[in-house]
Amino acid sequence: METRATVAVLGGGQLGRMLGLAAIPLGVAFRFLDPSPDAPAAAVGELVVGGLDDEAALDEVARGADVVTYEWEGVPATSARHLAAHGMPVRPGDRSLEVSQDRLVEKDTFRALGVGTPEYRAVSSRPDLDTAVDAIGLPAVLKTRRGGYDGKGQAVLRAPSDLDAAWTSLGDVPLILEAFVPFDRELSIVGVRGVDGAIACWRVVENEHRDGILHLTRAPAPSSEALTARAQEIASELLLALDHVGVLAIELFDVEGDLLANEVAPRVHNSGHWTIEGAMTSQFENHVRAVLGLPLGDTSARGTAAMLNCVGAMPDAGAVLTVPGAHLHDYGKAARPGRKLGHITVVADSPADLDARLARLLPLVDR
Amino acid sequence: METRATVAVLGGGQLGRMLGLAAIPLGVAFRFLDPSPDAPAAAVGELVVGGLDDEAALDEVARGADVVTYEWEGVPATSARHLAAHGMPVRPGDRSLEVSQDRLVEKDTFRALGVGTPEYRAVSSRPDLDTAVDAIGLPAVLKTRRGGYDGKGQAVLRAPSDLDAAWTSLGDVPLILEAFVPFDRELSIVGVRGVDGAIACWRVVENEHRDGILHLTRAPAPSSEALTARAQEIASELLLALDHVGVLAIELFDVEGDLLANEVAPRVHNSGHWTIEGAMTSQFENHVRAVLGLPLGDTSARGTAAMLNCVGAMPDAGAVLTVPGAHLHDYGKAARPGRKLGHITVVADSPADLDARLARLLPLVDR
Repeated sequence: METRATVAVLGGGQLGRMLGLAAIPLGVAFRFLDPSPDAPAAAVGELVVGGLDDEAALDEVARGADVVTYEWEGVPATSARHLAAHGMPVRPGDRSLEVSQDRLVEKDTFRALGVGTPEYRAVSSRPDLDTAVDAIGLPAVLKTRRGGYDGKGQAVLRAPSDLDAAWTSLGDVPLILEAFVPFDRELSIVGVRGVDGAIACWRVVENEHRDGILHLTRAPAPSSEALTARAQEIASELLLALDHVGVLAIELFDVEGDLLANEVAPRVHNSGHWTIEGAMTSQFENHVRAVLGLPLGDTSARGTAAMLNCVGAMPDAGAVLTVPGAHLHDYGKAARPGRKLGHITVVADSPADLDARLARLLPLVDR
Repeated sequence: METRATVAVLGGGQLGRMLGLAAIPLGVAFRFLDPSPDAPAAAVGELVVGGLDDEAALDEVARGADVVTYEWEGVPATSARHLAAHGMPVRPGDRSLEVSQDRLVEKDTFRALGVGTPEYRAVSSRPDLDTAVDAIGLPAVLKTRRGGYDGKGQAVLRAPSDLDAAWTSLGDVPLILEAFVPFDRELSIVGVRGVDGAIACWRVVENEHRDGILHLTRAPAPSSEALTARAQEIASELLLALDHVGVLAIELFDVEGDLLANEVAPRVHNSGHWTIEGAMTSQFENHVRAVLGLPLGDTSARGTAAMLNCVGAMPDAGAVLTVPGAHLHDYGKAARPGRKLGHITVVADSPADLDARLARLLPLVDR
């Protein structure tokens, strides 16, 4: 098979798999680096099995590639720098990794751009924790600065008596205390920036979580017209500040119409999966276009859409596929409690049709 | 990677590649049999290199598969029967191959269903040819009964003096003489039938050919509302008559509003490529659903669409992707004059927008 370009991807999970599915029609070959020989992305490209911090493996996956990208914000920034030092374009770059890997740097970056965030304080000692609680008040959330995801590595503090247990559980690494924000809902925005600096955003969406894991995304977020311009402005400013090339997602809290930034993912994002069927160009295709220096595609919506995650078990495919407008995305992963195994996107021409279809799908992914 | 089902595909060209791209999100693994180690489908599944008439290779590709399908009507019907005799479901079956591989059987089948076709006569000797010309008149088209595609294996007879040369060129195999129909335009319809007998069709489309190769498909065909019901009826009757499971395409001539069947392809079809972006469910996904016994997806259209083939050379990707609604499909094949290397689908909300976008794309694929 002749290919027109090769992209090396650090990480070979479902995000890599969906990037590869978007890349193949563009004639682009993907090569993935992942520690697991069972990586879901192996279905759509070559797989190099190795650690994301292993220089020999990094060199192997990057050999002959036109550009290196990543599908996971946990990729060590040193890995990105190692490749860049050897003349390989890495898009997005190490700055996007550094900012998203450290909740303190992340929030400092938002604040420096004039973007609101929940109140926060760095916590690196037990006395720091008391000082931070005095400043922020309770309830508050104590989180590891690095490494947490899907609700792991954090503890909710409701009363002073919670502090000791939280400190014992988390206190061996640098922490951040964040105010518990009584938000109305969680939103997110996904944007993309090209090599030429062009920026495009998809619709603002609303996200519902269960047990700390994304459950349902609605695109667009209901009644979000008034928030769209501000959300796009936040995304654009961050894309520019990070000199980010590729897709980036920002999780936002809607607090009575004000948007507070919660966190950033410097990659394609679960809350953007609906774009495969629900937008003119998906987040996956636009990420591939961006890192290769191709023009960005139209991000406008096609009808209205929702995305349901399949966690722990896959639903019956036959039942899902009887629902009009439903599309199943099975990541080919072995079932395990709490593991994201796939998702369903459902599209419709009207919000009423969407709700009716969603009502049929929700029981199928109930867990 | 864990997979939920495995489909073996006889043939590994671009149609297999696009079937595989549709199958991966369903958690379905594909395994292809193709004589070429450079088969385009190798990007989306396992490739067994071997002849489509090689029983050992057929057994190898089918081993452990849930179902066997094909992406080319040239697959020997004996190969389908060999696999079926060993208990492997082959969908569609050998009957669909036999009918589509022989232009005489094909036209007889249409006539038996009450579907009009151009006048035709079997020709197996030089005197037969004279008799057929006397019955049908000139101009007429002399074609090999088997094996021709994209305009190959046929000769147009305009005057009695053309007969000798045509016979010399083609007469060593069974032939058919077809009346030259002064059609207004070429249309096609793509339909699908499930294991349970459910049938669905996509829009009637209009096709323009160049040098015998499909150049442009418009979906829907302009002013085709009055023809849609009859076209769907023809497709449904043929799907039923062949006990066909999977996708099937029928090329039709529009002669002052009457539809004449020209030929059938028992597979996903070039004139259905627009369904990837232009329909709720693509022909590729519905073929995968059908052969696996899953429910068929909604075939309704999303906006208006057109498809342009890239023949002989790929257009500049950057230029194509600047056009809103344009999607590039590069089959990863080496360039060669007259070879289908890819296609572009363009979608829009209105026919006027579509025409404007098409006007920008047409010069990019001019050959």
